[in-house]
Amino acid sequence: MKRDFSLGEIAAYLDAELHGEPDLRVRALNTLQDAQAGELAFLANEKYVAHLGESRAEAVILSQKHAVVLMSGATVKNYKGALLIVANPYLGYAKISAWFDRSPQPSAGIHPTAIIDATANVGENVSIAANAVIDADVVIGAGSTIGAGCFIGARSVIGQGAHISANVSIYHDVRIGRNSRIHSGSVIGADGFGFAPNGAGGWQKIHQIGGVQIGDNVEVGACTTIDRGALGDTCIGNGVILDNHVQIAHNVVLGDNSAMAAYSAIAGSSTVGRNCIFAGDAAVVGHLTLCDGVTITARSLVTKSITEPGSYSSGTPLMPTREWRKNAVRMSHLDDLAGRVKSLEKDKG
Amino acid sequence: MKRDFSLGEIAAYLDAELHGEPDLRVRALNTLQDAQAGELAFLANEKYVAHLGESRAEAVILSQKHAVVLMSGATVKNYKGALLIVANPYLGYAKISAWFDRSPQPSAGIHPTAIIDATANVGENVSIAANAVIDADVVIGAGSTIGAGCFIGARSVIGQGAHISANVSIYHDVRIGRNSRIHSGSVIGADGFGFAPNGAGGWQKIHQIGGVQIGDNVEVGACTTIDRGALGDTCIGNGVILDNHVQIAHNVVLGDNSAMAAYSAIAGSSTVGRNCIFAGDAAVVGHLTLCDGVTITARSLVTKSITEPGSYSSGTPLMPTREWRKNAVRMSHLDDLAGRVKSLEKDKG
Amino acid sequence: MKRDFSLGEIAAYLDAELHGEPDLRVRALNTLQDAQAGELAFLANEKYVAHLGESRAEAVILSQKHAVVLMSGATVKNYKGALLIVANPYLGYAKISAWFDRSPQPSAGIHPTAIIDATANVGENVSIAANAVIDADVVIGAGSTIGAGCFIGARSVIGQGAHISANVSIYHDVRIGRNSRIHSGSVIGADGFGFAPNGAGGWQKIHQIGGVQIGDNVEVGACTTIDRGALGDTCIGNGVILDNHVQIAHNVVLGDNSAMAAYSAIAGSSTVGRNCIFAGDAAVVGHLTLCDGVTITARSLVTKSITEPGSYSSGTPLMPTREWRKNAVRMSHLDDLAGRVKSLEKDKG
Repeated sequence: MKRDFSLGEIAAYLDAELHGEPDLRVRALNTLQDAQAGELAFLANEKYVAHLGESRAEAVILSQKHAVVLMSGATVKNYKGALLIVANPYLGYAKISAWFDRSPQPSAGIHPTAIIDATANVGENVSIAANAVIDADVVIGAGSTIGAGCFIGARSVIGQGAHISANVSIYHDVRIGRNSRIHSGSVIGADGFGFAPNGAGGWQKIHQIGGVQIGDNVEVGACTTIDRGALGDTCIGNGVILDNHVQIAHNVVLGDNSAMAAYSAIAGSSTVGRNCIFAGDAAVVGHLTLCDGVTITARSLVTKSITEPGSYSSGTPLMPTREWRKNAVRMSHLDDLAGRVKSLEKDKG
Repeated sequence: MKRDFSLGEIAAYLDAELHGEPDLRVRALNTLQDAQAGELAFLANEKYVAHLGESRAEAVILSQKHAVVLMSGATVKNYKGALLIVANPYLGYAKISAWFDRSPQPSAGIHPTAIIDATANVGENVSIAANAVIDADVVIGAGSTIGAGCFIGARSVIGQGAHISANVSIYHDVRIGRNSRIHSGSVIGADGFGFAPNGAGGWQKIHQIGGVQIGDNVEVGACTTIDRGALGDTCIGNGVILDNHVQIAHNVVLGDNSAMAAYSAIAGSSTVGRNCIFAGDAAVVGHLTLCDGVTITARSLVTKSITEPGSYSSGTPLMPTREWRKNAVRMSHLDDLAGRVKSLEKDKG
Repeated sequence: MKRDFSLGEIAAYLDAELHGEPDLRVRALNTLQDAQAGELAFLANEKYVAHLGESRAEAVILSQKHAVVLMSGATVKNYKGALLIVANPYLGYAKISAWFDRSPQPSAGIHPTAIIDATANVGENVSIAANAVIDADVVIGAGSTIGAGCFIGARSVIGQGAHISANVSIYHDVRIGRNSRIHSGSVIGADGFGFAPNGAGGWQKIHQIGGVQIGDNVEVGACTTIDRGALGDTCIGNGVILDNHVQIAHNVVLGDNSAMAAYSAIAGSSTVGRNCIFAGDAAVVGHLTLCDGVTITARSLVTKSITEPGSYSSGTPLMPTREWRKNAVRMSHLDDLAGRVKSLEKDKG
């Protein structure tokens, strides 16, 4: 992989105004605090402005607003490096991060130990790593990468340019869109959790005969599960980003560009809109509908449908355990307490 | 796989009263709303009765009560398809779902790339997929299926007719009962989390020398973990159903036919009875006992033993974040508030 | 493996005072209640003292205090076995547990089906199981064990004596210290969850170009994830113990000897000190700092930095669901209730 880049080519890619020498080269991306000579940094958060003065970065990506402060010399007069002025420095950092990614390139072609069914359809420029197992009638889109030890079940389709990391399990009848990425340990298309009481105290399995549809440009973290539908498919929109340990149950519909942090979950048959954000461990119980643009804060549990965009929360604040014990006892008697207050008000009246 | 079935054979299997032509054939199972001509649907929930009128389903599984409504023509007079009248339509749907399951049949026999120790005992009609690794003295029961990339540790026993999906890890000395099913990414028999403070600020590992016993007809979801015992075995009863991301810690005993939804967990050495139901993320701390027939609602934490069957809950309701912030502050001062109410009552008295 | 041991050698290893015949041999370790003749037990918890009288154990590890009680014959006069008196019986049990661990020994050497890049550096006495895949420039320390189906990415380093169970996925540029242990299904070095809003309602991936550093003597449970850093490394100290389903996000720093039970989590860029203890499902949101010696009780959520050692909690107590419903309604109106109490106090004043 090419390992250094000129400020000129970076400025062109980021549509940045460059104050500095275009032929100067940077070999790594780093934080303002840690960047050394020859490294590129960025300033995206007001609270790091003070670090700019001491930064040794060769160049920094920043906004016009901060560049003005810098050039005025007011607080950060010591910074001597080049400036790459962009409208949105955090987005600029995100975009240029790909250039400095040292991830090993997957080997071209199909490893001799990969087991690929004769009926599978493998596109051009596909990399399939050692010990991957590809079942009947699978379609692997051009330019995609299948990691070591992956299993892909019959009739599943992997979109062009998709990247499946090692040891991912994809069941049958799963469709994964273009340029989507799935991290190790994740399981797509396992059976939804569907059982009917059998009338004798036990459970009758409901066979899960739907599939899974995952859109384009989706990212799925590690050890995340997306279950197949009971009847019809579980559907993940385009541009969705899922962190590690996420659970998407059967027949969930999740709208485009929604984001779910670690452990967040949507239970069976719930529909969540576009551009929703779930902080860590936020969860939605089954059979609900959430409109577009809903944010759920960390560890909150959604037990009713939401029709208004906005931020929603549940939970209690952290306290020293000794204080928490006293308060928690009161939580168990809150209805009684409210009744007593009402009674006092009545007496007063 | 056979792909269509006559209403006559379905009626016979479900012990249903058929109103319609026994030779009519259905090729798929679907919801009332989505079913097309040639498809079978079911009506199990009162709130979908209205959909019956517009359903194009070839036949519908339903109760006597709904069939009467239908035949009276009162609200659903447009439905022209056949009726399969059963005592419990949801159970009927569950039972017939197996007939319409298009899951690929596992290949017969042992894949040449499977690595099977010479001392392992493999029963008749077993399917072992590519790259599975079976250690010494393992017993694989007749008719069972081992998925691609599975690992099965020494001396473990897989019951007859069990189905282990791809990339499951089973440690040594684990017993899995007949017709049990384990989904991808799950780990059975990893070490319990046992450590003693070593007196110097660190931890001394307690070797986990027990095993795991899993009963018959158990279902284990994806990315679920069941740890081996510290001394003696972790025990899962018959007919237990576990969803994805479930955690069963060392030396837990879980009774027959209990059900645990995603992320629900039982900490070390706790005993949970039969026919218990844990909604998503319900958890039990260690060293407790829960009697039979306990239901724990979503995200509730059980911190004391439970001796009475029934439903138990903890947690706070969801609110708009702005309101939640104001209420949450009060939760930290609830004991103080209760004291003030008591003082007001005293003054009044 | 040697399967029985003399009391004399056990006493020497544990630095125990032996009351009994040093040549007597024990073949297994068990609880006081379940131990049979020929088995070793331990008494570490006051509440099990009563079991000692009926125990059939051949020998018991216990404290001086309990030995005195025993020898006085007061409550447990029936116990006839040998005594191994130690300062800390629970630690004694932990240490001796390794002697009775029947885990199968990994086969020596490299299995012929393992795929090892020619540039990898494999130390002496390493065991690499079937179908493991080792990428370019990996270093495998002497005496370590790599389980079946593991993937180890380019340039990663596995410390001497480390034990990686089956089906673990380790990405590139991960360093794992000496004698550390990682259980099945875990994923080390997957991308941190970093995305910038792209200004058009979608997300721009931030490539995660840091790595992961894991110290010596660390234990990582099953299905646990430790993400690589965005810039710079995610760091886990020496002697840390992590249970199953734990999540360590990008650029977390976790201090030596801290312990995290199942589902506990640290979000991105948070720093947690040494000797911290997280009970099950305890979580820390991003960009916080917790000092050394902090305990977080089960399912508590840390939303602010903590500067004082001690125990912290959040959450509500478990109640019968009927009562919980009434109390939960009041939680949504707590701010109002507090205002009404204040008003009553004013009126009184």
